[in-house]
Amino acid sequence: MSIDIPARPAALSVDTRNGVAYRVADLGLAEAGRHQIRLAEHEMPGLMSLREEFGPHQPLKGARIAGSLHMTVQTAVLIETLRALGAEVRWASCNIFSTQDEAAAAVVVGTTGTPERPEGTPVFAWKGETLEEYWWATQQIFDFGADENGAPQGPTLILDDGGDATMLVHKGTEFEAAGAVPDAAEGDSHEWRVVLDVLRDSLQSDPQRWTRMGQGILGVTEETTTGVHRLYELHRDGKLLFPAINVNDSVTKSKFDNKYGIRHSLPDGLNRATDVLMGGKTVFVCGYGDVGKGSADALRGQGARVIVSEIDPINALQAAMDGYQVARLDDVIGDIDILVTATGNENVVTVDQLQALKHLAIVANVGHFDNEIDMAGLESLPGAERIEIKPQVHEWRLPTGRSILVLSEGRLMNLGNATGHPSFVMSASFTNQVLAQLELHTKLDEYPIGVYVLPKFLDEKVARLHLDALGVKLTELTPRQAQYIGVDPAGPFKVDHYRY
Amino acid sequence: MSIDIPARPAALSVDTRNGVAYRVADLGLAEAGRHQIRLAEHEMPGLMSLREEFGPHQPLKGARIAGSLHMTVQTAVLIETLRALGAEVRWASCNIFSTQDEAAAAVVVGTTGTPERPEGTPVFAWKGETLEEYWWATQQIFDFGADENGAPQGPTLILDDGGDATMLVHKGTEFEAAGAVPDAAEGDSHEWRVVLDVLRDSLQSDPQRWTRMGQGILGVTEETTTGVHRLYELHRDGKLLFPAINVNDSVTKSKFDNKYGIRHSLPDGLNRATDVLMGGKTVFVCGYGDVGKGSADALRGQGARVIVSEIDPINALQAAMDGYQVARLDDVIGDIDILVTATGNENVVTVDQLQALKHLAIVANVGHFDNEIDMAGLESLPGAERIEIKPQVHEWRLPTGRSILVLSEGRLMNLGNATGHPSFVMSASFTNQVLAQLELHTKLDEYPIGVYVLPKFLDEKVARLHLDALGVKLTELTPRQAQYIGVDPAGPFKVDHYRY
Amino acid sequence: MSIDIPARPAALSVDTRNGVAYRVADLGLAEAGRHQIRLAEHEMPGLMSLREEFGPHQPLKGARIAGSLHMTVQTAVLIETLRALGAEVRWASCNIFSTQDEAAAAVVVGTTGTPERPEGTPVFAWKGETLEEYWWATQQIFDFGADENGAPQGPTLILDDGGDATMLVHKGTEFEAAGAVPDAAEGDSHEWRVVLDVLRDSLQSDPQRWTRMGQGILGVTEETTTGVHRLYELHRDGKLLFPAINVNDSVTKSKFDNKYGIRHSLPDGLNRATDVLMGGKTVFVCGYGDVGKGSADALRGQGARVIVSEIDPINALQAAMDGYQVARLDDVIGDIDILVTATGNENVVTVDQLQALKHLAIVANVGHFDNEIDMAGLESLPGAERIEIKPQVHEWRLPTGRSILVLSEGRLMNLGNATGHPSFVMSASFTNQVLAQLELHTKLDEYPIGVYVLPKFLDEKVARLHLDALGVKLTELTPRQAQYIGVDPAGPFKVDHYRY
Amino acid sequence: MSIDIPARPAALSVDTRNGVAYRVADLGLAEAGRHQIRLAEHEMPGLMSLREEFGPHQPLKGARIAGSLHMTVQTAVLIETLRALGAEVRWASCNIFSTQDEAAAAVVVGTTGTPERPEGTPVFAWKGETLEEYWWATQQIFDFGADENGAPQGPTLILDDGGDATMLVHKGTEFEAAGAVPDAAEGDSHEWRVVLDVLRDSLQSDPQRWTRMGQGILGVTEETTTGVHRLYELHRDGKLLFPAINVNDSVTKSKFDNKYGIRHSLPDGLNRATDVLMGGKTVFVCGYGDVGKGSADALRGQGARVIVSEIDPINALQAAMDGYQVARLDDVIGDIDILVTATGNENVVTVDQLQALKHLAIVANVGHFDNEIDMAGLESLPGAERIEIKPQVHEWRLPTGRSILVLSEGRLMNLGNATGHPSFVMSASFTNQVLAQLELHTKLDEYPIGVYVLPKFLDEKVARLHLDALGVKLTELTPRQAQYIGVDPAGPFKVDHYRY
Repeated sequence: MSIDIPARPAALSVDTRNGVAYRVADLGLAEAGRHQIRLAEHEMPGLMSLREEFGPHQPLKGARIAGSLHMTVQTAVLIETLRALGAEVRWASCNIFSTQDEAAAAVVVGTTGTPERPEGTPVFAWKGETLEEYWWATQQIFDFGADENGAPQGPTLILDDGGDATMLVHKGTEFEAAGAVPDAAEGDSHEWRVVLDVLRDSLQSDPQRWTRMGQGILGVTEETTTGVHRLYELHRDGKLLFPAINVNDSVTKSKFDNKYGIRHSLPDGLNRATDVLMGGKTVFVCGYGDVGKGSADALRGQGARVIVSEIDPINALQAAMDGYQVARLDDVIGDIDILVTATGNENVVTVDQLQALKHLAIVANVGHFDNEIDMAGLESLPGAERIEIKPQVHEWRLPTGRSILVLSEGRLMNLGNATGHPSFVMSASFTNQVLAQLELHTKLDEYPIGVYVLPKFLDEKVARLHLDALGVKLTELTPRQAQYIGVDPAGPFKVDHYRY
Repeated sequence: MSIDIPARPAALSVDTRNGVAYRVADLGLAEAGRHQIRLAEHEMPGLMSLREEFGPHQPLKGARIAGSLHMTVQTAVLIETLRALGAEVRWASCNIFSTQDEAAAAVVVGTTGTPERPEGTPVFAWKGETLEEYWWATQQIFDFGADENGAPQGPTLILDDGGDATMLVHKGTEFEAAGAVPDAAEGDSHEWRVVLDVLRDSLQSDPQRWTRMGQGILGVTEETTTGVHRLYELHRDGKLLFPAINVNDSVTKSKFDNKYGIRHSLPDGLNRATDVLMGGKTVFVCGYGDVGKGSADALRGQGARVIVSEIDPINALQAAMDGYQVARLDDVIGDIDILVTATGNENVVTVDQLQALKHLAIVANVGHFDNEIDMAGLESLPGAERIEIKPQVHEWRLPTGRSILVLSEGRLMNLGNATGHPSFVMSASFTNQVLAQLELHTKLDEYPIGVYVLPKFLDEKVARLHLDALGVKLTELTPRQAQYIGVDPAGPFKVDHYRY
Repeated sequence: MSIDIPARPAALSVDTRNGVAYRVADLGLAEAGRHQIRLAEHEMPGLMSLREEFGPHQPLKGARIAGSLHMTVQTAVLIETLRALGAEVRWASCNIFSTQDEAAAAVVVGTTGTPERPEGTPVFAWKGETLEEYWWATQQIFDFGADENGAPQGPTLILDDGGDATMLVHKGTEFEAAGAVPDAAEGDSHEWRVVLDVLRDSLQSDPQRWTRMGQGILGVTEETTTGVHRLYELHRDGKLLFPAINVNDSVTKSKFDNKYGIRHSLPDGLNRATDVLMGGKTVFVCGYGDVGKGSADALRGQGARVIVSEIDPINALQAAMDGYQVARLDDVIGDIDILVTATGNENVVTVDQLQALKHLAIVANVGHFDNEIDMAGLESLPGAERIEIKPQVHEWRLPTGRSILVLSEGRLMNLGNATGHPSFVMSASFTNQVLAQLELHTKLDEYPIGVYVLPKFLDEKVARLHLDALGVKLTELTPRQAQYIGVDPAGPFKVDHYRY
Repeated sequence: MSIDIPARPAALSVDTRNGVAYRVADLGLAEAGRHQIRLAEHEMPGLMSLREEFGPHQPLKGARIAGSLHMTVQTAVLIETLRALGAEVRWASCNIFSTQDEAAAAVVVGTTGTPERPEGTPVFAWKGETLEEYWWATQQIFDFGADENGAPQGPTLILDDGGDATMLVHKGTEFEAAGAVPDAAEGDSHEWRVVLDVLRDSLQSDPQRWTRMGQGILGVTEETTTGVHRLYELHRDGKLLFPAINVNDSVTKSKFDNKYGIRHSLPDGLNRATDVLMGGKTVFVCGYGDVGKGSADALRGQGARVIVSEIDPINALQAAMDGYQVARLDDVIGDIDILVTATGNENVVTVDQLQALKHLAIVANVGHFDNEIDMAGLESLPGAERIEIKPQVHEWRLPTGRSILVLSEGRLMNLGNATGHPSFVMSASFTNQVLAQLELHTKLDEYPIGVYVLPKFLDEKVARLHLDALGVKLTELTPRQAQYIGVDPAGPFKVDHYRY
């Protein structure tokens, strides 16, 4: 498969191992990225502490990590932490829009390298990939050159976000076992067709590639709800090829990244995209999970009137107790200035509902995929016209005569219109990731095939590594108090089902 | 054991079954209580829905329920719901101060009864019991008269709050097996001595009483953290005599009662006790669990500056992310106007710390027992003087020359100085209680000895029964959406480890 | 006019000067009041600072102050501050329900007196006066016995709240000039008829009493919006008899008392009256002035969904910017659980609207008079039935079959159901009052007849006296900074039209 | 004076009247600007309503308006509104960094023009002017070509922000009267030297230019505190040349722009500059005026712990009542992650304080001039090194070994790092501006020389024009209610000293 590497932005990796030089990164870009990485390190105390604690022991020596996760400044700090612990790393983004090119460039070039002689980590990602380019890039992270015997060598660990890398191994293995890649069915998405093409090419050129790859992988650590969901399904169906650690459900991930991260980046994205005052506006938030809670909180904090919808009566009751009107979208649709989806479900906003919105209402998705809003339906709506106001901000002129503003083409606007979660929040998530990679690399026998969350004491450790930076002084239990509540004075402090 | 029943308040029960009439309730009190119960019913839609749904089928027919839970207006609605579903009920409070006498009187007298001919439910509780009276009352709930064969008859179910009733059965059984009740050890609390006396008397008069009682009990449903903690310990040690349902950890209990209940009743108690402006004051909240979260939220909502302490790094990080200063008590003790304990641990505030507080600082416990603050230490502090400002509000003049105001003698001030959690919150908790009692009475085979939480669909049901009253409109999943996220359109909607 | 002094509560004043002993206060009540006053002093740093600063100089020596203001614990601290500065004082409440009997008793008895030999200040007030009793009591504050020549002697200053005392002097003077008191007109309120009777009796017994009284008065300091409004009207019409200081519009009064006071006492009153959970409820607040702002803020702080109505587009825009839905009452009336009036206008809630509310909706007035809600209309509504749940809490069964709960009979519920504003807030208001009395007593020549607000440096002084108690550290301007912004480093710091 | 017009950005005006074409705007830029202006119009309902109401009558016919105000998208809507009402307009920015080049380009080119044949309004502004360029641009707005008699023609009205245009006229007139421009004194700022040079050149080329200009000007409408302050000083000193309307102190300006505008743009600027998580951080806000209130509110809404400093005891008490710690900067300086100045004073943060901050603490000014933080001191600090992270974001490496991040070089970061106040807020401010221009142009006789605020009914009108867009439904007074509170049912509704 031949990919036409785009001429710019120049933030693209080089793979020196194979002697194949793709377009190298730009030095100016790399220097800008280096500055940002340095500032981000200051905001990522968890990762920096791990470097300090584990760096001298090189516990990831021998690990070959294939990473598929938004290639941002924060991910750069993650990548360099994995390297500092001894791992070999290759990286792609898990989203076609989310790469920050200067971060990618800096990671590729390394601290003392140049674009011509990069000394960093191979990264295959740039902002604004096509789907073909995206899946080409995803394949590159599996190619760790040849071992000492000249045999092709894949990763020992996957670090995944959304499960695309994991899916490639599993589907590849499945199709290789079947000896054929099925044809796309009618109604299959364009993306799925691209994946099938990729695997079809692979089957032709190396009929055991993914099977071999899967056998070499010790395990995967997965970042998000969606990816975790896929893993539980694979395991339920007996198809999971290696153990998986569900990083998403560490408390220090799900309750921090999802809630506090979005509280930060939703208003940030709205501002960068539209500069529209949130104060006084009526905002509808679909879903009151952690992401919805963070969204509602941020918008109220900016003086918006927030209305929430929910399908789960418990979350609905929480929303009510937190002072929000809980309504069905259809019942209040004519009042809404800003519509935010935070559900992780599909078709939460239909084309009919898009057409019922006020003129120039803003539509923003912070849930997961772009099918949360029926973008496909909108794209095929007769008479609808799409005008680019600026990248990732489009006015859709509707047959009703009204327009709406759709952010990031219905994809995650906190990534597309803002810069994703801020470093501090990602530090908590990524510290979990590194600890999870360490678990799989060093204690594999404790993880037979299955899906695991990290033990609570590691979760608490992640939190602990982030307190000093915030000036938080922890109170310590006396031995008598610890005994009174039946815990070790060093923790863990809570029963497993504690909800925080 | 002879108890001198206090002459007033007259809110005391009668037990007609044994022909022994204790002091009967006062009709005026009962009428006042009846009004309040009627208003509370309006605020307890969950319980009223259960009456409507299950009343005609009498599913609790044959159940004899011994209840030990604060005898408030809300509990009256619970008791009458249990009765409406067919149960026979006897009740005591689980706290010497928390009884609302008018509620007790109304429950005893019943809707159409009189103090002379009460038609309600036997209740053994009044506001301001001594410890001796308290344990006398607790014993009464186990005495369901004689069966058709004249044999003494105990409860089939316990509905417990804090585990005192359950403890009596377990300790009684243990001592009966040993054939003796141990002497109190030096350092044993006064309360434990009272318990030992009660069991010693019992062993003498009926050496198999508690053993027999325990054998007749199908199970217990427990309301609070502390009680649940005891149950898990009993089960871990192989001593649990019957299955237990942990109502406390239903989401609709722990995340509502603990958080939203205290958000309501902490400021209420502060107001009724002291009328002190919370705005502008510096408040220190020990503990950022659900109770601490609700406390901090309420006080910030009143314009206080809130500082939080924590021992768990995860909760500490949550407090910081919610915008609170997280500090050690000792580091800021000279700045504090109001000190709130919300930990469930012991000795969280020491006598030294009490003495370091500002003049007329307010000390309030919403955690659990009165040992959360070192009240025993304060009482034995040479030179300390206690002045009653009004019931449950005491000024302690300290040797330092400063005073502090201690609410509810260090016990739960939301019960002692306010009226406990409001009806709506208790409706959620108590709907869980009724569902749990139904589970044990009707599906005992699904509950071998152990400690259980209610299945998630019942938790969601509890939430659902409270939405209409708040005008909440739930959104419904389409079948396709349900399939997309892999759930039944009717729920349950979340994985078990979901944290809300 | 003969008044039948009620037998209990016994918190009633004695007037020793005239040798006429009315029912004396109860010692137990007085002692309870004394405790509360001591605690209140701690919360009223402004008044205590004035005692310290001015007490030695006795600047109010020779002042005879007639006070008409809610006879609460806080007012007791005010009265004793005026005394400490040298004034002679007589007091009545300005509301038939707002007296706290223990405070009245303590003020009457004094620190070392007894009911038989009271040594305090004459107070004519008890909780639950009839209108006849109220106006009898108001008259008593004008009777300062005889001067050294035996001539009857009135006050030199009025301290008023709502303007009733001031009105009596002005109307008395007007009718004395006319030589007759007019008959009541049809439609005149009962209260107005009582006032006419009082003045008719007075005219008969002493035809120059109020004229003489008015001539002896140096000025009045007025506490509230309503009273201030009356004063501006009197002055506009050329009828004002003496200068008036508008204490209400000191920043440290209006922006603190109205906003932060009601933020405290509205939820307090709702709790004491109904114990209803505010969280999750839909609350409608009529009016978004300072009182409405404080109301909305408090209710949101408790997790209520708040909807606001406004007639002023500026305040309406503020409400929207603060995140509240701004609607007309009629448009959302079926959704409301709690209805709060905060306007100072009349007939803001009509009988039709009362009937359109949900079953057991709560109706609470924190605006001003009871005509804010059409209570008169409700009382004359055929088929409406009033049931007393407890004092100041009435269920009204309506012809619709639904009920509503009306608090404090439509009068100020923060006074009737709670204990009014807390001490700290009243300290700011009352420190303004004392400073205003000082201005009139000591610098009368600077106040020709007219209505004045206190100069800004005194307003700032009031604030300054309340900072230490809250641990507030003020930053000081350097001389250069002061010059840069063109102010004195000691203040005042703002232009007069600054809005805070 | 010759100015070297920068080659890019190309957003620069053309003046066709004089036949002198400066660098014309870029069409792509203009088209981008046109899109943004169209979206902004939707968010500026006040201005659009004025176009609709007044456009047909051309009430500004004959007005020549010299505007000196940040050349943003919102200002474009203002300019085009003034044009739509009949005025002739020339514009410069009032800040060297705040111009949005695409907005400038769009205004210059006009809706149907081209860069070669611009049909819009002359604008002299681009992002990143030098001080020499800035003052050159400011001069251009006074040059309205020649009248029908060929005499040079200046503006009839100034629309000013900060008072630079007004200052030029006043200083020019003063120096022309003196016949000489003084030499710069030692210690004079670079900017003041530039102004003196400008006026010296002017005096040489046309010794009556500014005198003539001042005589032709009917009045000025001024946008900000600083400018208003200068006007009151000029008037106090008898030097004011023409009447001024203080737009800043319209309620719908100062209480909206300052508070709600900064609430929006402070976190926006922090995000765009640094992407740093605000949640959990300790933020210090200097000043609790309207800007400080909005700042503190926004940061708390993002989960920061906010500490406030104040010099005014009233504002300090407000901050405490709103729940903020009020401290002196020096006392907590080691805890601060983000330092925000919101005072309008000078030297509020000294170089010593900058050096005492934590490593990588962020320093942001939203007050007024860059002397609020001692940037001059920092620039001359030996051993301090400035590293540009990106435009308007600089790391200063300090001799202490620590660094700080300074935003916008100490100037207004909401303009330099964000896009200023959002359109909706500016709509309120600018609607006041247009009404003020209308007052001066059409009712000059009502405005003898002096400084005025707009009458309250116009202030209320501004608010009213913004309600529909937010879905706010205003309640209307009945005639009886209006009479009861003594107002016209159509307003104004409040006394002049009402503080909102």
